[in-house]
Amino acid sequence: MFKLKKTASSTKARLGTLSTDHGKIDTPIFMPVGTLGTVKAVKQDELIDKVKAQIILGNTYHLYLRPGCDIIENAGGLHSFINWDRPILTDSGGYQIFSLSDNRELTEEGAKFKSHLDGSKHMFTPENIVDIQRTLGSDIMMVLDECPPYPSSYEYAKESMELTHRWEKRGREAFLNTKPKYSHKQAQFGIVQGGTYEDLRIESSKYVTDLDFEGIAIGGLSVGEPTELMYEMTDLNTDYLPEDKPRYLMGVGKPENLLHAIARGIDMFDCVLPTRNARNGQIFTRNGYINIRNAKWKNHQKPLDPDFPTDLCQKYKMSYIHHLFRNNELLGLELASLHNLTFYLWLMDKVKERITNDTFHTWYKEKAEVLGTKI
Amino acid sequence: MFKLKKTASSTKARLGTLSTDHGKIDTPIFMPVGTLGTVKAVKQDELIDKVKAQIILGNTYHLYLRPGCDIIENAGGLHSFINWDRPILTDSGGYQIFSLSDNRELTEEGAKFKSHLDGSKHMFTPENIVDIQRTLGSDIMMVLDECPPYPSSYEYAKESMELTHRWEKRGREAFLNTKPKYSHKQAQFGIVQGGTYEDLRIESSKYVTDLDFEGIAIGGLSVGEPTELMYEMTDLNTDYLPEDKPRYLMGVGKPENLLHAIARGIDMFDCVLPTRNARNGQIFTRNGYINIRNAKWKNHQKPLDPDFPTDLCQKYKMSYIHHLFRNNELLGLELASLHNLTFYLWLMDKVKERITNDTFHTWYKEKAEVLGTKI
Repeated sequence: MFKLKKTASSTKARLGTLSTDHGKIDTPIFMPVGTLGTVKAVKQDELIDKVKAQIILGNTYHLYLRPGCDIIENAGGLHSFINWDRPILTDSGGYQIFSLSDNRELTEEGAKFKSHLDGSKHMFTPENIVDIQRTLGSDIMMVLDECPPYPSSYEYAKESMELTHRWEKRGREAFLNTKPKYSHKQAQFGIVQGGTYEDLRIESSKYVTDLDFEGIAIGGLSVGEPTELMYEMTDLNTDYLPEDKPRYLMGVGKPENLLHAIARGIDMFDCVLPTRNARNGQIFTRNGYINIRNAKWKNHQKPLDPDFPTDLCQKYKMSYIHHLFRNNELLGLELASLHNLTFYLWLMDKVKERITNDTFHTWYKEKAEVLGTKI
Repeated sequence: MFKLKKTASSTKARLGTLSTDHGKIDTPIFMPVGTLGTVKAVKQDELIDKVKAQIILGNTYHLYLRPGCDIIENAGGLHSFINWDRPILTDSGGYQIFSLSDNRELTEEGAKFKSHLDGSKHMFTPENIVDIQRTLGSDIMMVLDECPPYPSSYEYAKESMELTHRWEKRGREAFLNTKPKYSHKQAQFGIVQGGTYEDLRIESSKYVTDLDFEGIAIGGLSVGEPTELMYEMTDLNTDYLPEDKPRYLMGVGKPENLLHAIARGIDMFDCVLPTRNARNGQIFTRNGYINIRNAKWKNHQKPLDPDFPTDLCQKYKMSYIHHLFRNNELLGLELASLHNLTFYLWLMDKVKERITNDTFHTWYKEKAEVLGTKI
């Protein structure tokens, strides 16, 4: 499903194409997160027409609890339920069980957990998480894993990784022994774990590669470790991953993180940050980020950046955007969410241009520094 | 500014055109409410392209407190501040002083009140409320009035009406003695009061007519009185209002209320109901209203009304809309707000068609009953 088109000079940045029955995806790509089947505050047609999203993400844990697999199956799958005919990736719920559930219990069989909504008891296994994602009908499904916290002891990270490996083997078999429920094909990605320990990361890269998933994700990062350590682990991982499979760094991140991770060989990203931070008033721009709630914008009577193609940048004076946020008006959340996602996809386009004309290595560090600066 | 085009048979329903420097308005019309300079959850371009809004309303009380007149003046007026180049009507703040402010004190001079935001002290007078609306630059401004509660004693209603009349005389003089701050003309509407007492309503209709405002509003209704009484008072008022001035029934209401009020000679409406109720899950349809949170929609796998031109009706299965509301997703609020406003403006179009072909009187009562039914 993946075609590597070009590898850049001096860095590990790559251009590629990921093919699904719902369309092609040009990598490097950022995937807006639609946890419950909606990218918060953004309409589906805006995701296509304005954000230029090529693929969005849904969360298996959340969708399994609400509305539940029966409702989505009755609707004809997740694409039909949410009226989205481009590619969808669903995660495996491993991260949510780690982050959302107070009471969880890991056994060899799988992960028992209590719903964060009503306390009801559930269990995810490597096998049923494949079945659930067959019902959702995502174009790309993720294998069940355990995401260890940071910091974890070497012993915990190793045991957790080994459990994840056994789950991944079972998950891959379950995938290969079952068929899609709808008329389109599905792919399955494995997940590399290993905490922040180099030998475990290398071992996991090799193990997951051997299971021959259609793509490979790097998990367990962006969970509180220093940014430099995240970059190091990513760099190490991609050294041991095959060239001909897409690489997906889960849950990352800020614009500058994306540039550094692309330089280290990553093709795919997802993160709630652009939409969540938009709702808190953080706006990403080509010259750094701002907080629109700051009083400096109260009487700022010009648009933010008339040359950047979003309504927030072109159509309104900053005094108005500030006013919307100060009064918790929904329009502020809508404009900011739409802007930040458009910015992320715009950044991926710039990256592709830079890799295409082979100037990525001379550009990305400086650009990352600019993007990470508060203005 | 108003041209009466046609009066229907058998009812007092009218067709007219209201001309402003920001464009013409075909009456009967519903004006979406943009309290703080934004119609909640709806983008300005959607108001034009989808809702087909011809005029929107802003609240002087709210805008005066936030962002404040200085910010709006620096932006070049309310149209420029919110990036809206169609007509705007601003109210006078009288109703908000009545409904929002715990501590208010009415004197001959005006209304002293404490801000609901920070407790700061302010005063609106018939004169400064003209100045404030000159700064906002609305196409239609309202005169300062007092809105008595329901029920009010005859004595209170009479004294309140008389104070309002004295304020209106001063307000009209202030309007005639001042000029617009921007390049477009402004009009001023008077407000009829008098509680629910027939003789006071008649007296007020005559008094306000004599002040020769560009239009006349009926105030003090839809404040808790029985619906039939609201219709009676409206009917009585319009008997005493001139044919050649637009009539605006403030703060009304439900779709069925609009039809009954149009039959009684009303041309203009505003109400937060379509957007506020949308946010609570009430959706208006051609066949009655529904509550999308109701469990009956949970597994309803069809669109609501594929022939009605809104995304809510055409693009999504009801199971998805229900899911969005059940999870308090912003997309649900956006789709429902957009739908309800589109429905209100669609209803005004149907009314115009019915008056044009002179079948309004045979249609509106039955239609009102259908629209007021929960399905």
